[in-house]
Parts: sequence; structure tokens; C-alpha cells
Amino acid sequence: MADPIALITNIRADYEARYLDALASAMPNESILLFRNLDSEQRSRVRIAIVANPNPADVAALPKLVWIQSLWAGVEQLVSSLPAKGPPIVRMIDPEMSRTMAEAVLAWTYYLQRDMPTYVRQQRDQVWNQLAYKKPSSLTVGILGLGALGAAAAARLVNAGFNVVGWSRSEKSVSNVRTFSGNNGLTGMLRISDIVVCLVPLTSQTRGLLNAERFAAMKPGAALVNFARGPVVVSDDLLTALDNGHLTHAVLDVFDTEPLPPDSRFWHHPSVSVLPHISAPTDFDTAATVIAGNIAQFRLSGMVPGSVDTARGY
Amino acid sequence: MADPIALITNIRADYEARYLDALASAMPNESILLFRNLDSEQRSRVRIAIVANPNPADVAALPKLVWIQSLWAGVEQLVSSLPAKGPPIVRMIDPEMSRTMAEAVLAWTYYLQRDMPTYVRQQRDQVWNQLAYKKPSSLTVGILGLGALGAAAAARLVNAGFNVVGWSRSEKSVSNVRTFSGNNGLTGMLRISDIVVCLVPLTSQTRGLLNAERFAAMKPGAALVNFARGPVVVSDDLLTALDNGHLTHAVLDVFDTEPLPPDSRFWHHPSVSVLPHISAPTDFDTAATVIAGNIAQFRLSGMVPGSVDTARGY
Ligand SMILES: NC(=O)c1ccc[n+]([C@@H]2O[C@H](COP(=O)([O-])OP(=O)(O)OC[C@H]3O[C@@H](n4cnc5c(N)ncnc54)[C@H](OP(=O)(O)O)[C@@H]3O)[C@@H](O)[C@H]2O)c1
Ligand SMILES: NC(=O)c1ccc[n+]([C@@H]2O[C@H](COP(=O)([O-])OP(=O)(O)OC[C@H]3O[C@@H](n4cnc5c(N)ncnc54)[C@H](OP(=O)(O)O)[C@@H]3O)[C@@H](O)[C@H]2O)c1
Repeated sequence: MADPIALITNIRADYEARYLDALASAMPNESILLFRNLDSEQRSRVRIAIVANPNPADVAALPKLVWIQSLWAGVEQLVSSLPAKGPPIVRMIDPEMSRTMAEAVLAWTYYLQRDMPTYVRQQRDQVWNQLAYKKPSSLTVGILGLGALGAAAAARLVNAGFNVVGWSRSEKSVSNVRTFSGNNGLTGMLRISDIVVCLVPLTSQTRGLLNAERFAAMKPGAALVNFARGPVVVSDDLLTALDNGHLTHAVLDVFDTEPLPPDSRFWHHPSVSVLPHISAPTDFDTAATVIAGNIAQFRLSGMVPGSVDTARGY
Repeated sequence: MADPIALITNIRADYEARYLDALASAMPNESILLFRNLDSEQRSRVRIAIVANPNPADVAALPKLVWIQSLWAGVEQLVSSLPAKGPPIVRMIDPEMSRTMAEAVLAWTYYLQRDMPTYVRQQRDQVWNQLAYKKPSSLTVGILGLGALGAAAAARLVNAGFNVVGWSRSEKSVSNVRTFSGNNGLTGMLRISDIVVCLVPLTSQTRGLLNAERFAAMKPGAALVNFARGPVVVSDDLLTALDNGHLTHAVLDVFDTEPLPPDSRFWHHPSVSVLPHISAPTDFDTAATVIAGNIAQFRLSGMVPGSVDTARGY
């Protein structure tokens, strides 16, 4: 009999149930069990764990574990909480999530380009005032991170007529996108971007990346969209840049602490749009299909799918 | 010497000045003069008038007028205020305006699909609540009017993955769009649309088109976007449909009276987004280029460009 697959999560119970359902449907021949339902004999045979915010002790309780499949694209929690020399971590790379994130980037880019926050404010104040229309071809959107999500977002924005520039760690070539890399590259791309969209993973390199110095390098009047992780942005520095008007608006989907605590200034800042981490929710079915593919390949060939570089952090 | 061209407007002075500049640049060999600056000898020679909200008496004061070029796509005011047997009216058909309107339709479709009004409300109330994500492929957008603007909007929505249905007076075939026509067709398409986008011209046929009966035919929970003209919608019927929750939201760019009067309930209705007629502003330069083309063709061949059917009203 094949080894059981352990599902280890600390997430909303309804989300856990939907993942379990979707995984079971995508892999009818596998036995996928919640970690808490495994007996010790079963635990001793588990070679694959599927995880979302797992308790590290649960992972450590699987002596035969060969690899860990993350249900999420962002793996900073796993990388920091699991032993660096432990089983390789495979992160979620789902084309449907790339599509959804690219759509979110386009939707909130339109939100800014079309001055939706200002029109909401004008309506509240009963002001009828036509703001100058900004053509996409007159705006430059800068994307931090050109990975699975950033590259998809860039393509969508190019398709919509925006000028797109992008930044990554290694040098990259992306069609119709002017690319930058490294620290000097960052300043160069921030200087020319009207809207900066953050899609880098949270690592030791990117924690606190967007700080006072980086905001100062941005164009006066520029806007920020953070769809990556809260700690990539230094919240107080962002608030200062918004308060003094150097930046005009921030769309924030992710925060240092989530849910955003009641005392956060972001809630009531007139130049901030708070979103409850919804830009690119996991699609349970497509995520399960991607994982089923990874597991089928492992069963067939013994090959562990491409995994996270824990030193690099992503 | 060629006949002078009269520019007759009753619009914001800065807009008039920008039109005059753009027209002069686009037609350096024509003499384009503000109506109020023409002497009586010049008036007697004018064959072409370019108009935006003109005083009908000014138009009538041009005895040799051959045709009237509207600066606007919507010509309901011209059709109703100028004599039906007067010089033909040529309306503005500018590919750049079609692009801008298609962009507005996609932008505010995302606004609804991505629950932006609800997230704004949640932020105000400090609520952290993830709403279920709606894939474009799970939503149907119905477009009323498949003309220069409606057809461009339909193509943009199809490109973004939405199901698109459309309605026109005459039967039409538009690729990847299920089309309806006539009165029965209207009910059929309203029944299946999650978002209805209004892009029909204002005519005697379309005045009051979206009334209580039509709202009742719409899907419970559907939303309305009106980017055409205010009087196509019966405001009180819309407010009732929003009050009783049959419709969830309305994005309104156009109103019976503009600017929207201070006592309008739309200003403060929680399910209404008020926009100050900005969905597709005229681009002065591209509009002038389109007009220059029309005029060059007339100078060359004596042919008046395709004009409005005043009986039909568009
Ligand atoms: N808000 C949400 O709902 C949501 C949903 C999903 C994911 N996310 C976040 O989005 C992040 C990105 O996901 P992804 O799938 O696109 O990741 P990915 O494919 O690993 O791409 C990461 C990109 O960031 C670049 N990068 C990493 N470290 C960098 C550094 N120090 N300097 C410059 N560039 C750096 C990488 O450069 P190279 O190309 O040179 O390696 C790569 O282009 C995830 O880590 C997650 O935190 C958020
Ligand atoms: N909010 C803004 O900023 C803004 C900017 C520009 C224009 N507009 C408005 O947009 C309107 C549409 O412009 P357009 O250039 O697309 O006009 P168009 O090219 O003349 O197209 C009008 C469309 O509406 C359809 N239609 C007309 N009467 C109808 C009826 N009684 N029943 C069903 N369908 C009917 C026509 O059907 P057929 O195809 O069968 O003729 C056609 O498909 C303008 O009239 C203007 O009011 C608004």
C-alpha cells in the first residue's frame, strides 16, 4: 500500500475542508489524511506532506518525510520555521493564481489610473469635478519581482497599453518590459514609475526593502501597490511618505500583522486602500490539480519537483 | 479663398480653447473661427460648423451651412434642438474614444467583480473580511448597444475572460458575444447578465428604457453601469431596485441633470458610485484628427461624411 499523504494546516476550518475535498478529488488513488487523524504507524510511513501554516512540530513528527508541498506561493514562514537542512519545500506555482494576480494588478492599476479613490471622496463630499484623464501610454508601472506572478502581471499591463518596467534579483529579459536588476537597478526603476507594484517574496533581502530611502527615490505623486507581503514595506516610512504627499496613494493587500490590527493608522488614512489579503486567493481546484501533477511525477520517477532555495529564501 | 469653418460651443472656456488649438493644428490650411468672432460677411460663407452644445440660433445664422460636425459622440441635443430638415449632422466616431470607453467599461467591471465598493466600506468600518472571489468566466456582462463604443467594450471584456452578451436594435453578429435584439431580446439578455452596461444613445426609443419592469427582469444581485446618458435610466425606479436589494450596485457616470444636483439621492446612496461624466472624455487631438479627415474628404470630393438619421435619433 502506498504511503499516506499528510495535510497539515493551521488555517480557517472551512478552507481546510475545501482543500481536503479538492485534493481528494484530484487524486482519487492517494490517501490524503489530516495530520491530526494519523496514527503513529501512518505517521511513520508519510513521505509527502501538503502544508499551509503548519506547526513545525507536526512536520518534525514525520520521520520518513521526503518533501513538503506548500499550498501557498509565499513560503517565508516555512523557510524560517522549518530546519534549513530538512526535506525540500515545493512552493505553489499555479497558472490560475498567476492569472488572478495579473488581473488584480490590472484592476487596481485602473483603480489608480482612473482616480477611483478620489471619485469616492468627491462623491462623499458631493463634489462634481472632472479630473484630467491619464492614458495608459502616459503612465509607467514598475513591478518589483518578475517571477511567476510579476511576469504575468507585466504581460497583462502591457496588453492594456501601460509602459511597464520590472525589477528582479538576477538579470531578466521580458518582452515589452524594460528590466532592471540589483540595487542600482532598483533606484533606476523607482525613479521612472508612476505606480510601483510589489511582487517580491519576503526574504532576508527584501524585508524592509521599501523604506524611507526607496520612497524618496520614487517619483513625486507616485502610488504604491503591495500585493506581496507586509514586511517588504516599512509601514511607518510609507505613512510618512503619504502624510507629506510625496506618494499619493497606497493599495495594501498585505500587512505586518493580519488581520490588520484595530489601532493601525492604515485603516483610516485617506490615501490608503486596505484590502484583506484578497488579491489572488488560491483556487482550491486548480491548486489541487497542480499538486496532483507534482505527486504523480514523484510516484512515477521518484523526482521531487523544483524546490525552494532555503538560503535564498524563495 | 476657402470658406471659414465656424466653431460653435457652449462649454467650459478652457475646453473650447483646447478644441480650437487642436483643430487649428490638425488643419493648418483651414481658417477655423469662433462663431462669435465671425463678421456677417464671413457668416454668409460658412459651409461647415463644428459644434458642442451650440445655441440653435447661431446654427440658423449660417445660411450656406452644408453640414454640422459634432464634437461629441452623443447627438441627442442636436437632434432635438436643430430642425429635422436642416443640414446633416455628423457625429464624433473616434477610435481613441472607443478605446477609452472600452477601458472604462473594463475598469468599472473589475470594480464590481473585485468588490471594490464593499472593500471601501469595510475599511471605513474596520472590517477584515475576505469576500468570495468571482472568476470572470463565472460572470456574464450584458452590453446595451453594440455600436462604436459597445462593440469595443465587448471585445475588451471578452479579452479579459468575461462572458459577454450584447443587445442592439438591428440584429448583429459580434465575435465571441451572444447577441440579442429587439424588445424580447432585451428581456432575454437582462435575465442572464450579472452586470449590465448601458451604451445606447439617448433617443425617443431609449428614453426611460431601464425602468422598473426592466430592473425586475434583471438577475437578483445584478449591478448596473450607465456610461451612456442619464435619461435612459428611470432614476426613481433604479433607486427602488437598489433600496430593495434586487440590484446590488450602480455605477453612474451620466445623469438627468449634470452636474448632479445637490438634492439627488444618488450622492449618498450606499449602493451607488457617482462619477462626473468622465468615463470616456474626448481626446482633443484625436478628435481634431478625425474631424480634419472628414473635412479633407469634403473639400476633395464634396462628400458629406456619414451622418445621423434624425428620425431614428442616432
Ligand atoms: N497577496 C496575495 O494574495 C498573494 C498571493 C500569492 C503570492 N503572493 C506573494 O507574491 C510573492 C511572489 O510570488 P511568485 O510566485 O511570483 O514568486 P517567484 O516566482 O519566486 O518570483 C519572485 C521574483 O522576485 C524576485 N526577487 C526575489 N528576491 C529579490 C531580491 N532580493 N531583489 C530583487 N528581486 C528579487 C525574483 O528574482 P529572480 O527572477 O532573479 O529570481 C523573482 O523575479 C510570493 O512570495 C508571495 O509572498 C501574494
Ligand atoms: N459617458 C461618456 O463619457 C460618453 C462618451 C461618449 C459617448 N457616450 C454615449 O454613448 C452612446 C453610444 O455611442 P456609440 O458611438 O457607440 O453610438 P453608435 O455607434 O451609434 O451605437 C449605438 C448602438 O446602440 C444601439 N441602439 C440604438 N437604439 C437602440 C434601440 N432602440 N434598441 C436597441 N439598440 C439600440 C444601436 O443599434 P444598431 O447597431 O442596431 O444601430 C447601436 O448598436 C452615445 O450616444 C453617447 O450618448 C457617453
